[in-house]
Amino acid sequence: MSLYSQLFYSSNFSDISSDEKDLSRMLFFESSLAKIQAENGIIPEKAAEWIKACAEVKFLDIEKLKSDIRLGGNAAIPLVQQLTRIVKNNDVEASRYVHLGATSQDVIDTAQVLEIAEWITFLEHNFQKLGAILVSLIQKHRSTLMMGRTLLQQAKPITFGLKLAEYLEALQRHQQRLNQVKERVLTIQLSGAVGSGNEWINEEVRKGLAQKLGLNLSASWQSNRDSIAEWASVLANLTGFCGKIATDISLLMQTEIAEVFEGAADGKGGSSTMPHKRNPVTCVAILANAARTPHLAATILAVMTQEHERSAGKWHAEWETLQTLHGLSAGAMEKTLELLTNLEVDAEQMFQNIEITKGLIYAENVSLALSKSLGKLAAHELVEKACKLSIKSAKHLKEVCKELSLEIDNLDELFLPENSIGNSLEMIDLTLKNYENTLSTGRNSK
Amino acid sequence: MSLYSQLFYSSNFSDISSDEKDLSRMLFFESSLAKIQAENGIIPEKAAEWIKACAEVKFLDIEKLKSDIRLGGNAAIPLVQQLTRIVKNNDVEASRYVHLGATSQDVIDTAQVLEIAEWITFLEHNFQKLGAILVSLIQKHRSTLMMGRTLLQQAKPITFGLKLAEYLEALQRHQQRLNQVKERVLTIQLSGAVGSGNEWINEEVRKGLAQKLGLNLSASWQSNRDSIAEWASVLANLTGFCGKIATDISLLMQTEIAEVFEGAADGKGGSSTMPHKRNPVTCVAILANAARTPHLAATILAVMTQEHERSAGKWHAEWETLQTLHGLSAGAMEKTLELLTNLEVDAEQMFQNIEITKGLIYAENVSLALSKSLGKLAAHELVEKACKLSIKSAKHLKEVCKELSLEIDNLDELFLPENSIGNSLEMIDLTLKNYENTLSTGRNSK
Amino acid sequence: MSLYSQLFYSSNFSDISSDEKDLSRMLFFESSLAKIQAENGIIPEKAAEWIKACAEVKFLDIEKLKSDIRLGGNAAIPLVQQLTRIVKNNDVEASRYVHLGATSQDVIDTAQVLEIAEWITFLEHNFQKLGAILVSLIQKHRSTLMMGRTLLQQAKPITFGLKLAEYLEALQRHQQRLNQVKERVLTIQLSGAVGSGNEWINEEVRKGLAQKLGLNLSASWQSNRDSIAEWASVLANLTGFCGKIATDISLLMQTEIAEVFEGAADGKGGSSTMPHKRNPVTCVAILANAARTPHLAATILAVMTQEHERSAGKWHAEWETLQTLHGLSAGAMEKTLELLTNLEVDAEQMFQNIEITKGLIYAENVSLALSKSLGKLAAHELVEKACKLSIKSAKHLKEVCKELSLEIDNLDELFLPENSIGNSLEMIDLTLKNYENTLSTGRNSK
Amino acid sequence: MSLYSQLFYSSNFSDISSDEKDLSRMLFFESSLAKIQAENGIIPEKAAEWIKACAEVKFLDIEKLKSDIRLGGNAAIPLVQQLTRIVKNNDVEASRYVHLGATSQDVIDTAQVLEIAEWITFLEHNFQKLGAILVSLIQKHRSTLMMGRTLLQQAKPITFGLKLAEYLEALQRHQQRLNQVKERVLTIQLSGAVGSGNEWINEEVRKGLAQKLGLNLSASWQSNRDSIAEWASVLANLTGFCGKIATDISLLMQTEIAEVFEGAADGKGGSSTMPHKRNPVTCVAILANAARTPHLAATILAVMTQEHERSAGKWHAEWETLQTLHGLSAGAMEKTLELLTNLEVDAEQMFQNIEITKGLIYAENVSLALSKSLGKLAAHELVEKACKLSIKSAKHLKEVCKELSLEIDNLDELFLPENSIGNSLEMIDLTLKNYENTLSTGRNSK
Repeated sequence: MSLYSQLFYSSNFSDISSDEKDLSRMLFFESSLAKIQAENGIIPEKAAEWIKACAEVKFLDIEKLKSDIRLGGNAAIPLVQQLTRIVKNNDVEASRYVHLGATSQDVIDTAQVLEIAEWITFLEHNFQKLGAILVSLIQKHRSTLMMGRTLLQQAKPITFGLKLAEYLEALQRHQQRLNQVKERVLTIQLSGAVGSGNEWINEEVRKGLAQKLGLNLSASWQSNRDSIAEWASVLANLTGFCGKIATDISLLMQTEIAEVFEGAADGKGGSSTMPHKRNPVTCVAILANAARTPHLAATILAVMTQEHERSAGKWHAEWETLQTLHGLSAGAMEKTLELLTNLEVDAEQMFQNIEITKGLIYAENVSLALSKSLGKLAAHELVEKACKLSIKSAKHLKEVCKELSLEIDNLDELFLPENSIGNSLEMIDLTLKNYENTLSTGRNSK
Repeated sequence: MSLYSQLFYSSNFSDISSDEKDLSRMLFFESSLAKIQAENGIIPEKAAEWIKACAEVKFLDIEKLKSDIRLGGNAAIPLVQQLTRIVKNNDVEASRYVHLGATSQDVIDTAQVLEIAEWITFLEHNFQKLGAILVSLIQKHRSTLMMGRTLLQQAKPITFGLKLAEYLEALQRHQQRLNQVKERVLTIQLSGAVGSGNEWINEEVRKGLAQKLGLNLSASWQSNRDSIAEWASVLANLTGFCGKIATDISLLMQTEIAEVFEGAADGKGGSSTMPHKRNPVTCVAILANAARTPHLAATILAVMTQEHERSAGKWHAEWETLQTLHGLSAGAMEKTLELLTNLEVDAEQMFQNIEITKGLIYAENVSLALSKSLGKLAAHELVEKACKLSIKSAKHLKEVCKELSLEIDNLDELFLPENSIGNSLEMIDLTLKNYENTLSTGRNSK
Repeated sequence: MSLYSQLFYSSNFSDISSDEKDLSRMLFFESSLAKIQAENGIIPEKAAEWIKACAEVKFLDIEKLKSDIRLGGNAAIPLVQQLTRIVKNNDVEASRYVHLGATSQDVIDTAQVLEIAEWITFLEHNFQKLGAILVSLIQKHRSTLMMGRTLLQQAKPITFGLKLAEYLEALQRHQQRLNQVKERVLTIQLSGAVGSGNEWINEEVRKGLAQKLGLNLSASWQSNRDSIAEWASVLANLTGFCGKIATDISLLMQTEIAEVFEGAADGKGGSSTMPHKRNPVTCVAILANAARTPHLAATILAVMTQEHERSAGKWHAEWETLQTLHGLSAGAMEKTLELLTNLEVDAEQMFQNIEITKGLIYAENVSLALSKSLGKLAAHELVEKACKLSIKSAKHLKEVCKELSLEIDNLDELFLPENSIGNSLEMIDLTLKNYENTLSTGRNSK
Repeated sequence: MSLYSQLFYSSNFSDISSDEKDLSRMLFFESSLAKIQAENGIIPEKAAEWIKACAEVKFLDIEKLKSDIRLGGNAAIPLVQQLTRIVKNNDVEASRYVHLGATSQDVIDTAQVLEIAEWITFLEHNFQKLGAILVSLIQKHRSTLMMGRTLLQQAKPITFGLKLAEYLEALQRHQQRLNQVKERVLTIQLSGAVGSGNEWINEEVRKGLAQKLGLNLSASWQSNRDSIAEWASVLANLTGFCGKIATDISLLMQTEIAEVFEGAADGKGGSSTMPHKRNPVTCVAILANAARTPHLAATILAVMTQEHERSAGKWHAEWETLQTLHGLSAGAMEKTLELLTNLEVDAEQMFQNIEITKGLIYAENVSLALSKSLGKLAAHELVEKACKLSIKSAKHLKEVCKELSLEIDNLDELFLPENSIGNSLEMIDLTLKNYENTLSTGRNSK
């Protein structure tokens, strides 16, 4: 799996989602639990200190742990066994208090949530940067004329800024979602064997642990996995957003369109046999990720039907699925930022592409102008004919309109792209203003 | 598809998601648009009146419309054609103003959102009812002892109330999600051919239409489909929640466990060849829906990578997928309400099942008691041996413990289920209190 | 669901997969079973005759049946009840023999398989027609030069015939798959309540029924659903094949490429606001279907883990999923046939598009020519530089090569598209020959 | 991803699907290509020898390769670069002939197919072993009475052998599928930049390479991915089969049913807090895999719509997805073999469970006996009443039947499980005989 890790995954993946980090978060859970239990007089202070001192990844026999996972069915069982032994080697008494009152799922779920918290921080940081780069691109290309395209056909002109502004609108909604899922998913799991709690993990311990780990308190969600499923959905949704941008860019990079390009780098995007090609390599990675994440989210949604107080298999199906989802979603986000940061825009080519239909893309203008006198339907049909004539004769539609003596006063103006972009500029300005407001509010509220 | 509509779908499905209703919402969009345009002096008042008068499903030739969909690729094109002709038959001048400035996607997306709004109302109503029935069941079964089970094995006793309280916790999170997605998804689409707007659908018209339809205003989201994808995810998540409950109930209904039952109804759950069976028919429907919805949500997530200003195929893949998703999710919700409302609980059987391991399920109690003197690991291993002995000899674990002279004072108390439910009762009370608070706050805030 | 039935579904959908047809196949199962049982002396001849006479959809109360499905959880229970009553009204004695020894799943699964058999016939017929149209297009466009494109970039010239030949190769593999799945999936289900058979459906009855229905014999597969899952996979695979073709065509239809077009039809592909557009409406339908079917196949694969002798929910999730899958896959197939039958090819535009990179697409030719003297790596790097120079100066690569005095003898010939199509023609001929052989063999073997 | 590799993946995973092995297969492609080109006089013999000598993983700078993948977008580009440089360091002339005429996708796809070939060998080996263990279990438990269960309810008795025989039937179908997909998927990719071939990879070279690699010849399938999609479907289907078995076993292992058990191993299946539990750890792993693989197959099916001659992202989405699918499917297979090999069966408990409904499960017997005189419907209804009475009074159904004076001669015999297993034994024998025949035929044909 690692051969392609730098192509598809976030550069932070090995820092956040590695085996070592997973184990380290589990150990942190155990030492934090002991600390809080000590603070609440449930276990001796000294035991908590020993547990903390021993709860280090470097003391673990990871190969043995991986092998023992086959027997117990999860990582917490051999981890607690090893930790207990390590503590025992130092202080027999202290070893009695390792993992006291907790169950495997408490450790694994809470460690999972701590990993999610790290990814949320990563994403929030990237959202900010992506917002900034989008704002800057929008400002630069507010009036850059280009074709709007629907169903892969040229439709009517827009500005490149409008396309980007719609991305910015979506970005803000994704930020909201991230903000909202945070409340639900950043929650400790600590409720023991069957979710009922016990004397060693009473409400004070639960509160204390949540506070220490910077997480919210919650009843047991050991087999009610809606927040994990929501988190997976948010990530797949976010990757879909990145994929939408990469779709647009890769299509605009087509040799025959050539309006924007991924930033060049030495050796980047070169083909092994066609030295002239400028392959959309960054888009390719984002698109590959966007093709995979919906199915990973579906996996998580599909395993929500977990049996009783802990599932036999469905919980287990979450682990690697989430890990891959983290890497791919964060990778898509990071690469989209890179893509937009280095984007090269050929405004001249955008402008020239507007003309390649010989005026056909202004047909709606003519149609609307005509509809004032003829009504929509008749106008539509008349212009359809003019268009066919234009295509057949390879003449510019404006010429055909003149030849057909269509009753329009300002014919020339109908064929200017800057007159055909509707309210693009106003819409862009509104988006920028709203985003600015959100930023200010966001800043103030923190 | 309709043969099984009553088994799987919401009883409201044909009221909300039928062809007629779809067309009627589209016509309502057209007449509302005309009205707002008239109010803003963009089209004549009289035209708006004619359009409203003609915008009735009963005037449409639906068979022709379905057939014309093949040519245009969506329902809006033939709908607008028919509406324009109907208006024209009444008032030629008025027909010029039908659908003015709008594009097919404006109509279809906004009509889709209006349908979503109806389902949100439906779900909110059902959430309330489901919350109420859960509260009532929790109160009734706060102390009803039963086995907690993990990995399909008996683990430790809980109360049935605790299991139900965890459902109630999840329910509240789902209510929050519904509340939050509402802000984003209940949004008009009105931005014309390529999302850039035009003089006939200026900001005033957009605001007016949003207000008239009870929706939020938004920039174009014609090819940025994150809110639709979120909506699909919320529905699949909700169905997963229903599926989790149905999983538990259907497992508890197993002949060998027999702790709860679907409410009996004449002829319900009978097998064609085994008259004694009490099939979990309602659970079956919910589980079937929960098996299908993750994949429908994945479809919507996977088609987020829509090209340019309108996609060639990916937008189109949303239509029927969402329709089915609505029917199945709402169906799951409705059937879960029915399931819990009529649930029969055999508390006596629950109690008896606690004893079938001959005390083995109290092993952790013994282990924890022993660990005070021996440490966790040694205690764990000792009890493991005792359990093996108990199994081998078919003796009750309590007897084995006595025979092994384990140093425990209060042995009898360790084997009482009511002493083994941890903080179940406190947790239940906390959940009920929180829910009560949310309800009050919810009420106050409206 | 029916609003868009003509856009997405096969025109045969309502003939093959309607409620009436479903019920009719179930009734046919019941009357056939009775007939075979009579032939084997298990029930009276007269009873079988009465059952046959009564087993007509027109006698059923379908609305009641749909409503009763909620109680029993499947269609067979109320169907058998109604059939029994209808027979009883005619002959009390005969009514004792309805559905004798069979279980609901026997009826439903076998009726499902009979539906699959009808779709297989449909697909085989369409495969033949699609093969013929591909052969004819390949022959016509064997030498039609066009750009080959990789990663959405122009790469090297091919002929349009080569692209089509690769479709034909895939088509043949799909035909093989259909042929092979047929053996496994066209199999009766007849093994009673728990798959163990009984005296009324002994091996002779099972054989007789299989023969009468034109199906294979098999042990019970009531909860071993691999053949259904294979069938779903074959359909999704086939739809993916159609989607691949539609992807290519829709991309080639882009305004800026304009090499092929869907056949025009009155009103087809027109946009409601842009009368000039030639939307890829047929491609759109195929692409929408190809976006949905993988998830429907995944649903069927995911519900393979069916419990014990009959599943609680997973079997039920298959029903509508398969129905939709049938309609969409057959629809994709039918529309692909329509697409290719009416395809308009602009060979002149294909030729002109080859030149738009000003010779850059011949860079590999130059590179390979140079590599003879310089080695691959050095040649690659030198040509990369020449390409950059060509782009910068907007000069044709051939001119740049001359200016750089690259040591190549036959420079002009390197820049002829017909010299750059490799073994396209030989490959095409091989494919056509193989297909011809398969057809002959196929014919002979039947 | 590796923390859980031993829990979920095949023990052969790192031997077959590691980075090193991937690179080694790619290098083998390059050296084999050179060898065949030399044999055909296309490149010098000596060049081929140098290429072979240099094509060793140990010479690669893997870290640099992973990093360069980001630039080129696939592993072949940096691999060929490194290989060329290594050869050049030894023999400048030879370096000109590395990868001659081939494209990145030729290397990557063919190396992928070589990996698939290794997994096919692995699976075939496991199929044989699984078949043998099933035969042995079936023979042992041919007459072991147990409950058949439908919709999670006790239905009618079967024998455990019948359940196992249905697995064996499915196994044979999976073997057929594997055999059939082999023909299509074990195929070289060698057709150059756009699939058109060229002088260096002419038909002789293609044939020679196919022969040397033990693969079939085929036209280019660079963007027609049906065989890869079929392979993914076959694997997911196979994993679903394993999941079905694990579902049954895990349900039968429930504390309240306790009919079969995973073989015990020291420390296996123990819970961290409940020393008495016997968790279905092997089932859990299989079930987790079966929950994930349908979505991985769906990913592969969904990316079939690859653009033109090579896709921008969809091809790339296959790589890691297939790798994971291989590991999980082979893991499921391997663990199912382990599960069945060590299965512990409690025939006594199976027998006792048959009695827990107090005769209710014999209701169909009574119903069928009664139907001879009363007709099916009346009998069904009468027995339904008797059952309700039995439940209400907690009396055995046989007693109730006596009290109700139902007119049945051989009442006692109706309540013997061995009389209620239908044709279980005959069906088992038929399955065993068929399997034996297949084996013989299989052996003979090889």
